[in-house]
Amino acid sequence: MSRVYNFSAGPAVLPEEVLKEAADEMMDYRGCGMSVMEMSHRSKVFDDIIKEAEADLRDLMQIPDNYKVLFLQGGASQQFAAIPMNLMKNRKAGYIVTGQWAKKAFAEAKIYGEAVELASSADKTFSYIPDCSDLDIPEDLDYVYICENNTIYGTKYKTLPNTKGHTLVADVSSCFLSEPVDVSKYGVIYGGVQKNIGPAGVVIVIIREDLIRDDVLPGTPTMLKYKTQADADSLYNTPPCYGIYICGKVFKWLKKMGGLSVMKERNEEKAKILYDFLDQSKLFKGTVRKEDRSLMNVPFVTGDADLDAKFVAEAKAAGFENLKGHRTVGGMRASIYNAMPKEGVEALVAFMKKFEEENA
Amino acid sequence: MSRVYNFSAGPAVLPEEVLKEAADEMMDYRGCGMSVMEMSHRSKVFDDIIKEAEADLRDLMQIPDNYKVLFLQGGASQQFAAIPMNLMKNRKAGYIVTGQWAKKAFAEAKIYGEAVELASSADKTFSYIPDCSDLDIPEDLDYVYICENNTIYGTKYKTLPNTKGHTLVADVSSCFLSEPVDVSKYGVIYGGVQKNIGPAGVVIVIIREDLIRDDVLPGTPTMLKYKTQADADSLYNTPPCYGIYICGKVFKWLKKMGGLSVMKERNEEKAKILYDFLDQSKLFKGTVRKEDRSLMNVPFVTGDADLDAKFVAEAKAAGFENLKGHRTVGGMRASIYNAMPKEGVEALVAFMKKFEEENA
Repeated sequence: MSRVYNFSAGPAVLPEEVLKEAADEMMDYRGCGMSVMEMSHRSKVFDDIIKEAEADLRDLMQIPDNYKVLFLQGGASQQFAAIPMNLMKNRKAGYIVTGQWAKKAFAEAKIYGEAVELASSADKTFSYIPDCSDLDIPEDLDYVYICENNTIYGTKYKTLPNTKGHTLVADVSSCFLSEPVDVSKYGVIYGGVQKNIGPAGVVIVIIREDLIRDDVLPGTPTMLKYKTQADADSLYNTPPCYGIYICGKVFKWLKKMGGLSVMKERNEEKAKILYDFLDQSKLFKGTVRKEDRSLMNVPFVTGDADLDAKFVAEAKAAGFENLKGHRTVGGMRASIYNAMPKEGVEALVAFMKKFEEENA
Repeated sequence: MSRVYNFSAGPAVLPEEVLKEAADEMMDYRGCGMSVMEMSHRSKVFDDIIKEAEADLRDLMQIPDNYKVLFLQGGASQQFAAIPMNLMKNRKAGYIVTGQWAKKAFAEAKIYGEAVELASSADKTFSYIPDCSDLDIPEDLDYVYICENNTIYGTKYKTLPNTKGHTLVADVSSCFLSEPVDVSKYGVIYGGVQKNIGPAGVVIVIIREDLIRDDVLPGTPTMLKYKTQADADSLYNTPPCYGIYICGKVFKWLKKMGGLSVMKERNEEKAKILYDFLDQSKLFKGTVRKEDRSLMNVPFVTGDADLDAKFVAEAKAAGFENLKGHRTVGGMRASIYNAMPKEGVEALVAFMKKFEEENA
């Protein structure tokens, strides 16, 4: 067995000890005689798995009691519809467009009502976060929507928008559990787990209870109603059991590591190694305005598409996987989620230095 | 490691060699240096996994070229909405109600249009399949819907309904790949994989291409449009990669076993052992009309709730798990899917005999 350094934007690297435990428990989960894949979702043993996962997540994020935690399916893309279907009481919502995923969420909301673009950074290829301290926000909006960390462009809100009293809804797929958050500032925090938490196929929705309503938009599928899922504690139908089990293991790992404050320090330290190198390099440069840089996704370019391709190919041969930038941006991108060890970032920077010398 | 005989109705027993392979490949999938959980869904290696899974499924089921195979999320329950949203052009569909899941699908369809009950077996606790050879079927129905194998009640259609030219839509969750089918007789065959194929979190939809339309009902979420998923070969967003990988392994196992004709023989042989015992037992009896008996789910009772509970408890202590009947039916149920070995059924019958002697 030989593991690479995997800089994939998602699905992405998971902690090795989590994978080892999962492999060890594959045939027989803790003496129950079956795999977690084979057990009834109504069994006591699975009930313990999902309850413990939720309790650990609540503990890690300090989720207040008036918020529900839902383990759902369909990824963030399905939430792009579920959010307006559940929350658009007045059929009007505001979107801040900071990248492709916010744009997709914005487009989907237009199916269900009036979606207003409150701000955008499209003018500079989404390379920054707009000033959201004093936006012109219509009174009758049902919510203000953001994508808090933009995986493709490598930007992150360092300050949440001033929503002027409106409910904040945030897609945190690519910064989930990367640092502490104040959940009480949000109405809904949600994200696909396949970047920072677990295998693709689980999306976690953390929602304030007063937003869980029965009077959703007409035509909302029963499965997409938050009330259906909240009333059934995510067991309205068979949930993605194995994915939830892996998420639970990652929560335990995060707690063992010291929780989200420690993860933030580690993530800042890792990102600094890479950004400091980029800031002094004569070959590579970062693409994002400094104050908006993500700790999770670091895009960079040489300015020469052929050289970019050469770098990606040579990096791959040296055991650095998935460094190619998103197809809509080009260049390179290193995603350095919680489970990427500091050694991986150090090794990447050493490789970049060598490449720079060889291609000066 | 000690494995039990797991008679769960779903999630359910998987082939041991599939689980062993998955455990072996957990840290490093075939030399690529990462787990299948960690790899980009846009990578070459995952593309090979999903393409091969689809090719093997097409081979096993002899799926004609004019049918698409979609790997989706949300389970059958989400399809209960997706089907009318995509197919209810005239806003009218017929449902044959043979159990709780057909009933739920029927109720969901009413959100989107006129849903007509064409037949039902509710009068006898869904213990039989109604005669569907000459139903009164309105001309303008968009489709006729069935649940082909009823997990809770243990019934199975032995002959498909005469739909009088209308599109047939079938939920085959609990008989998926248990025997050969003629796909060309259906417009849509779909099912959650967590009973006979893989881990919960994947639903497979096999749909005739002419039914994949752009003019779905207004308000249909982009993710629930079959066209979205078909155009993107199930990669519109991140699919449930790890679940698809396990399904692929089960497809390979089925091919190695000899394919669906051989599985049918094996399943008939296994079911006969149990039904023959029930038919001569003085203590236990089956609950389903003989000609409608499922090969997959075998409900039975003693007629005494206390004795049923005693049996379930003693069976569990002896290593026979999940024999308790569904909460809406009571009694016992043995689900004997593809991956349940004949030895498991023989051991169960031996245990039942002993229990009968001891409790005569």
